[in-house]
Amino acid sequence: MKKASIVTIGNEVLSGRTIDTNAAILGRELFSIGIPVISCYTIGDDVDAIVRSLNLACRDADIVLATGGLGPTDDDVTREAFAKFLGVKLQLQSELLYAIEEFFARRERRMPARNKCQAYIPAGTKALFNNIGTAPGIMAAAGDKLLIAMPGVPREMERMFTESVLPELRQFASGQAIVSKRLGCFGAGESAIAEMLGPIMQRGRNPLINCTAKCGIITLEIVATAANENEAQTIVEKDEELIRTKLGKLVYGVGDQSLAEVVGGQLARRGETLAVAESCTGGTLAKLLTDIPGASRYFTYGWFTYSNDAKIRELGVEPKLIEEHGAVSSEVASAMAEGARSRAGTDFAIAITGIAGPTGATEQKPVGLVYITVSSNGGLQTKRYIISGDRDLVRFRAALTALDVLRLELQV
Amino acid sequence: MKKASIVTIGNEVLSGRTIDTNAAILGRELFSIGIPVISCYTIGDDVDAIVRSLNLACRDADIVLATGGLGPTDDDVTREAFAKFLGVKLQLQSELLYAIEEFFARRERRMPARNKCQAYIPAGTKALFNNIGTAPGIMAAAGDKLLIAMPGVPREMERMFTESVLPELRQFASGQAIVSKRLGCFGAGESAIAEMLGPIMQRGRNPLINCTAKCGIITLEIVATAANENEAQTIVEKDEELIRTKLGKLVYGVGDQSLAEVVGGQLARRGETLAVAESCTGGTLAKLLTDIPGASRYFTYGWFTYSNDAKIRELGVEPKLIEEHGAVSSEVASAMAEGARSRAGTDFAIAITGIAGPTGATEQKPVGLVYITVSSNGGLQTKRYIISGDRDLVRFRAALTALDVLRLELQV
Repeated sequence: MKKASIVTIGNEVLSGRTIDTNAAILGRELFSIGIPVISCYTIGDDVDAIVRSLNLACRDADIVLATGGLGPTDDDVTREAFAKFLGVKLQLQSELLYAIEEFFARRERRMPARNKCQAYIPAGTKALFNNIGTAPGIMAAAGDKLLIAMPGVPREMERMFTESVLPELRQFASGQAIVSKRLGCFGAGESAIAEMLGPIMQRGRNPLINCTAKCGIITLEIVATAANENEAQTIVEKDEELIRTKLGKLVYGVGDQSLAEVVGGQLARRGETLAVAESCTGGTLAKLLTDIPGASRYFTYGWFTYSNDAKIRELGVEPKLIEEHGAVSSEVASAMAEGARSRAGTDFAIAITGIAGPTGATEQKPVGLVYITVSSNGGLQTKRYIISGDRDLVRFRAALTALDVLRLELQV
Repeated sequence: MKKASIVTIGNEVLSGRTIDTNAAILGRELFSIGIPVISCYTIGDDVDAIVRSLNLACRDADIVLATGGLGPTDDDVTREAFAKFLGVKLQLQSELLYAIEEFFARRERRMPARNKCQAYIPAGTKALFNNIGTAPGIMAAAGDKLLIAMPGVPREMERMFTESVLPELRQFASGQAIVSKRLGCFGAGESAIAEMLGPIMQRGRNPLINCTAKCGIITLEIVATAANENEAQTIVEKDEELIRTKLGKLVYGVGDQSLAEVVGGQLARRGETLAVAESCTGGTLAKLLTDIPGASRYFTYGWFTYSNDAKIRELGVEPKLIEEHGAVSSEVASAMAEGARSRAGTDFAIAITGIAGPTGATEQKPVGLVYITVSSNGGLQTKRYIISGDRDLVRFRAALTALDVLRLELQV
C-alpha cells in the first residue's frame, strides 16, 4: 500500500505564528483517496534541515508532499533544497518565467526582478503551474518515490493540489481503498465508551476504531482498508451496526453532525418549536442552535437572564423561589423553563442555570453545578449536573448537555 | 542556546481530522521565553513510530515536548513509548491513581477500571498532575535532554504547560531575551494598517512587527531581541508608542484582550449596564460578552428575537415598522435597541438585525447586510454594514462590529 509523508516548511510555523492547516487539508484529501499519511515533519527555512526531512520522509513513505518556502524572498529555499536532495542544479524554465510575468501583467504591474528566482526549478523535474499566485510547484521522481513541493499559502496549495497533484496521485496509488465513518456520541466518557465497546477497539484490527474526546463529545472513527471501496464500505457498516447496538442512544449522529443540528432536525421534522432561557450559559446554547442555517424554523425566542430581576420580570419566576432556593436550583430552572415556554408559546423550552465560575461558588454550590430543565406539554424534566472544566468548558458542556436532554426526549 | 523539538502524536492529526494547534501554542510559548522550536514531528498512535520520533527530536534539540496519546483507551500508547525510549518499565504511582479517582469523585462518579492505566508512568520519571482531566503528563531526563509528555486536549495541555512545564523550562534555558507585545486592532483591514504603519513593518528590523488578521481582528506583534529583558522591553515600548500614534482608536487592546473584555472593562469602570437584542447573531454577541468572568456586573438582560413575533411581543417593535421596512432595516434595529434598553432599564442597549445567510437574501438585501444600533441616553446610533464571509463569519464579525461601535461611544 502506498503511503504519504508531509513536510511543512517555514519559520512562521515553528514559532507558532502560523497554524499549519495545510497538513490537515492534505491528510484529509489523501485519506479520501486511500493514501494514509504516516508522518509529518515541520522544519524551518533552512536547506540542510529540509534535505534531512526529505530523507526521513522518503524512508517512511512512497509519496512526499512538501509545502512552503517557494516564495520570492531570501528565506524561501525549498527550490534549492529539492535540487540538493535530488543532486541536480536549478534550471531556468522559460514557460514558468512567462507565466509569472503574465501573472503581474494581468494585474497591470511589471514583474519585480526578485520574482525571477521562482522560475528556476531542479533540472529534470516537472513544474506545477500556479494560477492564483507566483510560486510554481515542483514534481519530481526519485527512484520509486514521488516528491512534490507546493506553495505554503493554503488557497494556492489547495488549488494546485486539486488541479495538478491529485490526478497524478490517483494513478500512482490505484488499487487500494480506505473508507471511514465517524459516529458522534454524547452522554458517557471516553473510558466508559471504550469499556462498552471492548475488544473491537484493539489496535491492528481492520477496521480500526479511533476514539477522540472533545468537550464531552466522543467521536468514534471506523477506518476500513480493502482492495476496493465496496469491500471497505461493507467492513465499516458491519462495525457501525455493532457499535450502535452496544452504545444505543449514546450515538447521536454521524460525520460532522453537531448535537444542535441533530436536535434541530428532529424539531423540524416534527414541526415543533423551541425557546431557551439561559442564565450561566448566556447565549452559548442560542448560538449553538443558530449556528445551523434554517434554525429560525424551530427556534425563534430566547432570553438571557443573568440577574434575578431579569428572571422575575422576563420569565415570571416567583421572587420567593429565588429567595428560598437560590437562583441556581432545580426550582428556579423549572420556573424559568415554564416561563419561557408559556411566554414564547413554543412546544419545548430549555432553561439552564448554574455556576460557570471562576467565582460565585459556595460550600453547597460548587463551580460546575448546573440545573437544566426541559419543559414540554408532557411536563417538566429537571436534571442536576456537576460539570468539570473552566468557565468556557462548563458553559459549553452545559449547553451540549441541555441539547442532549432534549434530543433524548424527542427520540422517544 | 537551548532549542526545542515538538512531537505531536495521534492518528487523528495525520488523517487531518484534527488540526494540530498544540504545536503552534507551544511554538509561541517557547518563543516568548527565548527558546526556538527547531523541528516538529507528527506521527500516529504507534509505539515504534513514537520512539523513532523521540530519537530524531533528541538529535535536533535539548528539549522535547510531546503531546497526545495519554488517554485511557487502547490507542493511547505514549506512556508505553516513553518507557521504551527510556529503557524502563511502567510503574504505578499511587498519588496519580488517587488524583484520578478524586477527579471522578468530585463529579460524583466512580472511576472506570480502564482509567487506572493512566496512573502508570515510566519508572524514574516525574508525573505532571492534570487538574482538569484524567491524563497526567510525564517529565523525564535522558542524559542532558529534557523530555516531556502532555495530553493532546489543548486546554489540558495549555494548563499543564503553564503550571508545571514553563517554570522548569525557564530554569533549563538561559541566554538572550526576547520580549514581545501584541496590539489588537479593529476597524481597518490588514493592508490599510500596513500602509498606515509604513517602513516600520520591514523585515530584518529590530523590533520585528508581525501582522496577522483573523475575522476582522488585526493583531500586530512587536518582537524585540536584546541582551537582557529590560533592553528588549524598551525597544518594544518605543515601537508601541509609534504604532499607537499612527493608528489611534483602531488599537483596542493589548495581549489576549478581546473586544468584549475591553468593552466590559469600560462599562464596569463607569458603573454602567448593557442589554442586547440579537436577531441574526442569535446569541453570538451575548456569548462573547458572557465569556468574560464577572460580566454579570454590567450585562444582565438579553433577548434573541429571531421571529417578527418575538421582536413585537418582547421588545415592543411596532408591527407597522416591520411591514414597511422589513425585519432587516435601520428602523427595526433602532426599535429593537430602544425596546431592549427601556425594558431592561440599562444605560446602553445593542441591537443587531441582518442576513447571515446562506438563505434569506433578496435583490435589495444581500447576505451580509447587517444593521447595528447602540441606544444610550444620548440617543440612537444606527449603522449599516455589508459583511463578507460565510454564515459563521458574518455572525461573528457582526457581533464584533457591534462591540466596537459601543467601545468607540464609551471612549469619547
